[in-house]
Amino acid sequence: MSDTPQECSTGDCVISDFSFEKSHMDGNARRGVMRTPRGDIQTPAFMPVGTAATVKAMYPEQVRQTGAEILLGNTYHLMLRPGAERIERLGGLHDFMDWELPILTDSGGFQVMSLANLRKLDENGVTFRSHIDGTAYELTPERSIQIQRMLDSNIIMQLDECIRLPAETAEIERAMQLSLRWAERSKTAFDNARGRALFGIVQGGDNNGLRAKSAVGLVDIGFHGYAVGGLAVGEPQDVMFSVLNEITPHLPTDKPRYLMGVGKPDDLLGAVERGIDMFDCVHPARAGRHGHAFTKYGVVNLKNARHKDDPRPLQLDSPNANSRRFSRAYLNHLTKNEEILGAMILSQVNLAYYQELMAGMRLAIEKGQFDNFAAKTREGWAKGDMPVL
Amino acid sequence: MSDTPQECSTGDCVISDFSFEKSHMDGNARRGVMRTPRGDIQTPAFMPVGTAATVKAMYPEQVRQTGAEILLGNTYHLMLRPGAERIERLGGLHDFMDWELPILTDSGGFQVMSLANLRKLDENGVTFRSHIDGTAYELTPERSIQIQRMLDSNIIMQLDECIRLPAETAEIERAMQLSLRWAERSKTAFDNARGRALFGIVQGGDNNGLRAKSAVGLVDIGFHGYAVGGLAVGEPQDVMFSVLNEITPHLPTDKPRYLMGVGKPDDLLGAVERGIDMFDCVHPARAGRHGHAFTKYGVVNLKNARHKDDPRPLQLDSPNANSRRFSRAYLNHLTKNEEILGAMILSQVNLAYYQELMAGMRLAIEKGQFDNFAAKTREGWAKGDMPVL
Repeated sequence: MSDTPQECSTGDCVISDFSFEKSHMDGNARRGVMRTPRGDIQTPAFMPVGTAATVKAMYPEQVRQTGAEILLGNTYHLMLRPGAERIERLGGLHDFMDWELPILTDSGGFQVMSLANLRKLDENGVTFRSHIDGTAYELTPERSIQIQRMLDSNIIMQLDECIRLPAETAEIERAMQLSLRWAERSKTAFDNARGRALFGIVQGGDNNGLRAKSAVGLVDIGFHGYAVGGLAVGEPQDVMFSVLNEITPHLPTDKPRYLMGVGKPDDLLGAVERGIDMFDCVHPARAGRHGHAFTKYGVVNLKNARHKDDPRPLQLDSPNANSRRFSRAYLNHLTKNEEILGAMILSQVNLAYYQELMAGMRLAIEKGQFDNFAAKTREGWAKGDMPVL
Repeated sequence: MSDTPQECSTGDCVISDFSFEKSHMDGNARRGVMRTPRGDIQTPAFMPVGTAATVKAMYPEQVRQTGAEILLGNTYHLMLRPGAERIERLGGLHDFMDWELPILTDSGGFQVMSLANLRKLDENGVTFRSHIDGTAYELTPERSIQIQRMLDSNIIMQLDECIRLPAETAEIERAMQLSLRWAERSKTAFDNARGRALFGIVQGGDNNGLRAKSAVGLVDIGFHGYAVGGLAVGEPQDVMFSVLNEITPHLPTDKPRYLMGVGKPDDLLGAVERGIDMFDCVHPARAGRHGHAFTKYGVVNLKNARHKDDPRPLQLDSPNANSRRFSRAYLNHLTKNEEILGAMILSQVNLAYYQELMAGMRLAIEKGQFDNFAAKTREGWAKGDMPVL
């Protein structure tokens, strides 16, 4: 392995390290690119969630065609089934699911807290039983890093403790301090794995002081990127935005910032406005499986009877072929009858809309027109549906 | 409309009538082509089933790419939801589901007998209640034709009465005679609809004499093609083949013959050997949704634990990319976790295998090597799985 960040031979350059370059700012909104050995990721970026080694109801190339440049994989789900050791033997997650581009994996912590049974958390880590078959597992900061490396993850997240809100300040602080100590252990375990990135996670609930302490503590340790955890867990949007306002001044401007598990289109707009670069969320795909379609004119519930006889497509002026191709009457028929094709089409439509939104934000930041773009975009959503022609 | 069977202008020929041309025979096996205004169908042909205006878990172009040149639509399902009148208002079934090539529709009779509630059958037709919401419907030979025309079907099936076996001879004969009278009414109602075809359906259960009578009666009326109904309802394969042996000598050699609802790959081989030109069956797609994959080495159950760590693809030497692309370990993971992508991949794999089988039979008939092809194909299936390398 070369010591230079790029290995170049016969005109072919292979990036061997993770890097982030910020190219534009517009207010607090940032335009940049993350470079990894598996490809570049233009930011602000939305990462579709491939929970169990598949973005539900889509072939990998269909996900790619929406514009996605990176996927998120769930460590908790993958360590349970099919197992991290098995995926490693099979060549890693990219080969396993036939997705060649970068993958970010979470630490498993969040799903352990929300899905697993019989959790026991102490300084060392968390022991729990699988929600599927009751098998006992242990997850420590070190084991989480090890699993994520076995998965061949490109962006690795530290193990943290994410608590439910509302909570007592003392409890929020305890979990935040534990997460900081786990951050330190994660950094040690990560051991500068070449070509991979390690992100720390800011905790501290809805307490601004604790959020700031967490951010400062993480920056002291030093990470390739900084995530904001413990949000999008049911709190109002203004609480989330206020936490972001508090945290971002404490984060280095030359590292990517990732808001975990967020969100709806309007959340993305507001968070990019506040200096966030990366997002993931199951919402668009899940909403699609339930018959809800994202459009520039708002969310359309295709199960609604008003679409039964409507020969118009979902959105006539969409850049996405599927949004122009099938009639609303057909989509109503598919979703009402729970046909798999309905889930396939609307998963694609929603992930494509999210990528369209991100691409729009990226261009707007480049042009210094983010506010204008945000206002126009919100104006479109406020219409509620495509105008009747 | 022109009175000639082809309308040609500026080098562009549009077929305005249905026709069938037989080009080769090899023993009783037949190679031919059906021509319709929506395209040619090479025979022997397998028609994927698009029950509710979708071949489950596949985009129309993915179905086309397997080699399918015609789909089957189910009149019973479509008349209930979304309704034949609605589909007609929306431009017909091709436009509704974005499938441009020919569509054959069944009469609705078979599903009325097997799915609907509170059936009452008399000389005029059958009244029943929807299994979905209890709405009352009437299906007569005339109404069935009308619905199939509203669906914009290219090959229309007569309404018939299909009874369960075993049954008393008198009961089999009663249903067969009723089906013949309904065949006559269907012909009148069809009224030589330009560009469409009408097929009669041979009934008569497992009684060779009654089957012969039914065939002769239908030929007297005269149809574009002749279907064999009331088989593949649980009887042994040799009973089915013996009925085919009895019927085919009574059918015109210059009209297509369609074995309804059949079957497994070995059924197709044996039926083509006996002079059948067309098939439909939900089996390959349904088996795929349940984790079973068709290969030239037999059926592979991907839920079986032996695949858990197998890095090999389903079939290394398959002409179908999906069969070579994903590891068995990944397919095991997807099917065990009931991921939609598993259903998508295996539906495609199975329909592609069926088309590969039909293409193989067509080529073998052209070359006069059908027996050899059939023997080699059965030899492959008998291996049970891909050889271990």
